[in-house]
Amino acid sequence: MYSESIITVRYAETDRMGIVHHSNYPVWFEVGRTEFIKKLGISYSEIEKRGIMLPLIRLECSYRGSATYEDRIIVRTSVRELKPTRITFYYEVVKEGEEKPITTGTTEHAWTNRDLRPINLKKVAPDILELISKSTGSPAK
Amino acid sequence: MYSESIITVRYAETDRMGIVHHSNYPVWFEVGRTEFIKKLGISYSEIEKRGIMLPLIRLECSYRGSATYEDRIIVRTSVRELKPTRITFYYEVVKEGEEKPITTGTTEHAWTNRDLRPINLKKVAPDILELISKSTGSPAK
Amino acid sequence: MYSESIITVRYAETDRMGIVHHSNYPVWFEVGRTEFIKKLGISYSEIEKRGIMLPLIRLECSYRGSATYEDRIIVRTSVRELKPTRITFYYEVVKEGEEKPITTGTTEHAWTNRDLRPINLKKVAPDILELISKSTGSPAK
Amino acid sequence: MYSESIITVRYAETDRMGIVHHSNYPVWFEVGRTEFIKKLGISYSEIEKRGIMLPLIRLECSYRGSATYEDRIIVRTSVRELKPTRITFYYEVVKEGEEKPITTGTTEHAWTNRDLRPINLKKVAPDILELISKSTGSPAK
Repeated sequence: MYSESIITVRYAETDRMGIVHHSNYPVWFEVGRTEFIKKLGISYSEIEKRGIMLPLIRLECSYRGSATYEDRIIVRTSVRELKPTRITFYYEVVKEGEEKPITTGTTEHAWTNRDLRPINLKKVAPDILELISKSTGSPAK
Repeated sequence: MYSESIITVRYAETDRMGIVHHSNYPVWFEVGRTEFIKKLGISYSEIEKRGIMLPLIRLECSYRGSATYEDRIIVRTSVRELKPTRITFYYEVVKEGEEKPITTGTTEHAWTNRDLRPINLKKVAPDILELISKSTGSPAK
Repeated sequence: MYSESIITVRYAETDRMGIVHHSNYPVWFEVGRTEFIKKLGISYSEIEKRGIMLPLIRLECSYRGSATYEDRIIVRTSVRELKPTRITFYYEVVKEGEEKPITTGTTEHAWTNRDLRPINLKKVAPDILELISKSTGSPAK
Repeated sequence: MYSESIITVRYAETDRMGIVHHSNYPVWFEVGRTEFIKKLGISYSEIEKRGIMLPLIRLECSYRGSATYEDRIIVRTSVRELKPTRITFYYEVVKEGEEKPITTGTTEHAWTNRDLRPINLKKVAPDILELISKSTGSPAK
């Protein structure tokens, strides 16, 4: 399963090279993540309300092309790996009407409590683990 | 009294017009505010720890010139008006070595508790009110 | 005439007060402006391609409420004043399903060339002036 | 050789988790890069004036700790690999007074012309290549 988020590039997201500044892609990944989780039937806001946080522990991003103001962008988000303690998302950013992604990336996150201490989702929220697990098509080990 | 904060313009702060995107000036004002409060002998972090917040209720900004990547910028911050329920700061942003500000602005803030409900600083934290009051040279009415 | 832009609040747009940082509203105004101009039948990208820029000269913003992550926000954009040398937009930001705006604001812009020098749109691009003028229902003086 | 850049965390850089949003680290890396190049005796602005750009092609970032508003942060920047067509920087972000980095990362860049087409620095600007090469202590192959 994957989700698609459509983003129109904001003027503020460009830099003086005339293209989107690279620091915006992690923000767009987050937009993708938000929509992916919503598609599962929960929302990341609700997950947080239950005291479960998902801070980033690793980010990787490859830039092959560029985008600029008013370009229509699609962020494709999927789960690459799910564990009771961690989750890794994979992203492809494509310009509308194109096939080759201008950027791809992964973000690895730890499941934590409000104090940002690691938790085991199998113990704390097995329902959330199962929900995401179904969407990946493979059980969390 | 006023404080001076020195900022070197970041690449990410420019836009495709080749200059600093206007949305960064409110962020620089905040940098100025942080340093102004520190100069008083407290810090805004400590004020927050006491459960006192200072959300913005009004922002006004006039742009007369521009800056770009690697320019050295000075933000001059002072208090324009202090009340037990509100505070207004005034800012001048100048390029190092120049006199005429490229941007001036004001931010008006409400003193609130953690739930963002208005508080009267005279009752909740008279010491903070007095400290800022001294710096403005006029007692808070 | 006015346009409506729908924005879902990004996590990155929140701050440690738990709400949207005030510096994002000018960026949302820009999203609104982009969509307003598109609704007129041109795009701001095309205007720029013709060598016409629209840098900000004044920003004013009043904050009455707040928004947070995943809130759905509507930015209503209209033209408040149009002159051959300047244009002022007015914005209302409301949460979906609510009536009272959480934020209102205006941005005043100068029509300039690529070197950011003032131009008179009546001379340089009377078609654009007329197009916007129609949308405001009042001729540019 | 490495450079050290000191940054005080801005309020706008925090998110509702109470810590610095991860998308700010790439921006801080850029601050580090700017200062590193300046330490070599040129500036990135001058390099750009000569028509040479340095867009990102790969970003990698590991988050081990966190920072929040008003924390003093040091960004240590060095060159990990230098080629006539590419350059890779390495960064360590530490809190002042601490030893273990809260974040480490690398950015890989392509040397390009203004149209973002790859160039060979040995041909286009051997002086810049040599300057950076000296700082790394190893000749660019």
